[in-house]
Amino acid sequence: MRGLPMVVRDARMPERVTIYEVGPRDGLQNEPEVVPLEVKAELVRRLVAAGLPVVEATSFVHPRWVPQLADAAELVELLRGEDESLEHPVLVPNERGLDRALAAGCTHVAVFASATETFAAKNLNSTVADQMTMFGPVVERALAAGATVRAYVSMCFGDPWEGPVDPDVVVRVGRRLLDLGATQLSLGDTIGVATPAQVGDLVARFAAAGIDVDRLAMHFHDTYGQALANVHAALLAGVTTFDASAGGLGGCPYAESATGNLATEDLVWMLTGLGIEHGVDLDAVVATTAWMAEQLGKPPASAVARALIG
Amino acid sequence: MRGLPMVVRDARMPERVTIYEVGPRDGLQNEPEVVPLEVKAELVRRLVAAGLPVVEATSFVHPRWVPQLADAAELVELLRGEDESLEHPVLVPNERGLDRALAAGCTHVAVFASATETFAAKNLNSTVADQMTMFGPVVERALAAGATVRAYVSMCFGDPWEGPVDPDVVVRVGRRLLDLGATQLSLGDTIGVATPAQVGDLVARFAAAGIDVDRLAMHFHDTYGQALANVHAALLAGVTTFDASAGGLGGCPYAESATGNLATEDLVWMLTGLGIEHGVDLDAVVATTAWMAEQLGKPPASAVARALIG
Repeated sequence: MRGLPMVVRDARMPERVTIYEVGPRDGLQNEPEVVPLEVKAELVRRLVAAGLPVVEATSFVHPRWVPQLADAAELVELLRGEDESLEHPVLVPNERGLDRALAAGCTHVAVFASATETFAAKNLNSTVADQMTMFGPVVERALAAGATVRAYVSMCFGDPWEGPVDPDVVVRVGRRLLDLGATQLSLGDTIGVATPAQVGDLVARFAAAGIDVDRLAMHFHDTYGQALANVHAALLAGVTTFDASAGGLGGCPYAESATGNLATEDLVWMLTGLGIEHGVDLDAVVATTAWMAEQLGKPPASAVARALIG
Repeated sequence: MRGLPMVVRDARMPERVTIYEVGPRDGLQNEPEVVPLEVKAELVRRLVAAGLPVVEATSFVHPRWVPQLADAAELVELLRGEDESLEHPVLVPNERGLDRALAAGCTHVAVFASATETFAAKNLNSTVADQMTMFGPVVERALAAGATVRAYVSMCFGDPWEGPVDPDVVVRVGRRLLDLGATQLSLGDTIGVATPAQVGDLVARFAAAGIDVDRLAMHFHDTYGQALANVHAALLAGVTTFDASAGGLGGCPYAESATGNLATEDLVWMLTGLGIEHGVDLDAVVATTAWMAEQLGKPPASAVARALIG
């Protein structure tokens, strides 16, 4: 069985891509049982050892909202103490979060915006326009402190309350975040409803607006099984950064057995078959997923892990 | 939530496709507990009512090998008794199976070939070359009786014993089956290892060999999560027929929780988003999957069903 998949290149696609691992942050933040600090640190260590070039480690969200990540500063300091050369990005929801991240010595931060009014209201207690007022000082102060800023844009392809999302609004929100000083946008299909032509269309609209496709990352959820088809469309549109979560960590708002984030190993399988360089060791990711599934006491949500471990 | 996905067309793709439903045959043949005849008939009825234009109903395989399908003739006769206008295709492994299918009045049959020596030996007790000697009389006699013949080619993208599969061998096997008189080829990724560029490459090789892409169907398994990405590549290559199985019925050789056949509802979600006509009612398929999951006493394997039912 192993040795597969066969490698067949598609000359229309990038030669290499960056996998941006979000499991320790986006995955664990949805876990109801608090995961011990040492397990979180070991997860990050294993992902780094598997070759993942970027591992978002945690979020400096208020512990009252996400008790799971209350140990953000401890985790960052523990990991830095082991290897000073590693600088894992962290999410900062607001200025208070930025203060804590900077105090912990973080040099890569990410903010989390919304492309839709309902989600901006529910998640940020703001509006699509007013959220920029909130992010402005966060980005400005992060840059002044020498940090880089990634900006997530959520609900780019569909919204559970509003339904369809106007792609031109997504481009406008993205442009504002880049204008504030973000270096990269992560365009999120937060509820997993996107299909491939919609993805190609959105990327084309960013390009038509003069935004370099290399500044876009795609963040797909596999809720409806569409994530890898959407990655395929994004690769054909020239996208070179993809968010993924080992084992599909990230749960699902709908059902325990359903999947959330695109699983890193499913993405690695496809990229490997496409002959696209990614630098990640498939076996090491699958082993990490197996180990993490044991820690969490539930089976992995990824197809590749189930096929190879099961 | 419902009303989604948003529709965005990709002008490079076909305007309509045919979904060839294989759940009642390819799905149920792997179920260890014998499903009652009435449940099988009701599954076919519900799939037809959901708008699926072709539903492969059963296999006239020897009952000793697949006891689950020992009631093939009864099922075919029961369904015809209810609606004479419906002619469901059936699998016939050999001349004896064809005799039984013709005696039951079937007018669409399918044979099952192998692209690799090891699978030809294990599944057919033959070789890639010699299997044609076996299929020749089956196809000839089926055509003489006025039936159409579909030919499955298994292991087109990878083989669990041999690993890589030479795509030119797949084209040669396919051409021989068409030369014998088959009207359609179903190219199977039996172990689910294919990735998209490999799919596009194989379709291009068939086209280069002068074979009309409209005579190809793609039969993907979702074992490694790649099925819909592969459908996407096949659509871009002009393929217009896709095999799928409601609820991903078809189990998996590796783990109970892992998926086998591409799930019809996951395919319908993507095609709907792509604005490709398919004639299938998503809600009706999901309801059928939910009903069948109750009959089998296990959760559905499709992402869409888990998201919408869960």
